[in-house]
Amino acid sequence: MARTGRRPGDSGTREAILDAARETFADKGFAAASVRAIATRAEVDAALVHHYFGTKTDLFVAAMELPFDPAAVVPALLEPGIDGLGERIVRFFLGVWAQPVPRARIQAILRSALTEETGAALLRDFVTTEVLGRVAAALGTPDAELRATLVGTQLVGLGVLRYIVRVEPLASADADAVVAAVAPTIQRYLTGEL
Amino acid sequence: MARTGRRPGDSGTREAILDAARETFADKGFAAASVRAIATRAEVDAALVHHYFGTKTDLFVAAMELPFDPAAVVPALLEPGIDGLGERIVRFFLGVWAQPVPRARIQAILRSALTEETGAALLRDFVTTEVLGRVAAALGTPDAELRATLVGTQLVGLGVLRYIVRVEPLASADADAVVAAVAPTIQRYLTGEL
Repeated sequence: MARTGRRPGDSGTREAILDAARETFADKGFAAASVRAIATRAEVDAALVHHYFGTKTDLFVAAMELPFDPAAVVPALLEPGIDGLGERIVRFFLGVWAQPVPRARIQAILRSALTEETGAALLRDFVTTEVLGRVAAALGTPDAELRATLVGTQLVGLGVLRYIVRVEPLASADADAVVAAVAPTIQRYLTGEL
Repeated sequence: MARTGRRPGDSGTREAILDAARETFADKGFAAASVRAIATRAEVDAALVHHYFGTKTDLFVAAMELPFDPAAVVPALLEPGIDGLGERIVRFFLGVWAQPVPRARIQAILRSALTEETGAALLRDFVTTEVLGRVAAALGTPDAELRATLVGTQLVGLGVLRYIVRVEPLASADADAVVAAVAPTIQRYLTGEL
């Protein structure tokens, strides 16, 4: 009965869904959290959740205020093929970190992952499924998951040292110089000899 | 001569020096903080600080509870020469992170660097001087500082994803497999084409 109590268009409903999503993702992790469980917690119909936020991934992106949606970005980066993928990934990544608002959001997410086990588990779960899983599927090799996580190590470390800790001369280095230095690492992790 | 027996007040003095060191390093950064300023803040003689803790670097290591002293470790890693340096660095690094207490300490330091500007500045200052500076001096090339910071990006990201966020299959991967995958990256950053 309570499910019909909230009407579409109520901004309180959107906030209630986002709150329920954050709580449910934190409780269960990304993979095990269902849109239905989130809807139940928010006391709305699951169809309303989809209507407002789209897929579970879209809802996660909205609830966590992620700076980009990997469901859109990862396929776009993969689409031109494996050649040059390392360079495209590094350029995209530098572009996101270079903007203050996305950077602050990534920093907050990393801080949460370093501070509490729940934060680490949630990040791990989402990144594994939605980012690394997509890259690994595109590579299609037996060690593709390990390769994708190695890519992650280089990108996370680059972001932390260049944009948060701001170690010189890396912090002030030209983006092209950083791409030239790091893209071969990413490409080797993706397709080279390990 | 009096060092054989602990006199009343000794442990209080040591703690006062460590507190003063933490405050002074936080205020001024590693490079600008002097042992004399720390001694003044602790209301002891500078000679007593040296007597208890050795050099300023040693004092920093003690005050920050760093899991290793780069003044000892970096030269030891560099000593056999540039060949195989990437592999030695990765093996050492995995060995430190694999132990719970050092890992917890590194995690706390990274968290501080991600949380507050003071933490980031202090880490940046110390790592630049005591770790990257030593590696860069050993390389001796014009771009040695950039190379050393690139090494740092790969190591930090590896530590965060393998040991803190624990993304699979990287977290459970055999150390030898991780060394085989990552050592060539480190070696290329140190001596390869960028």
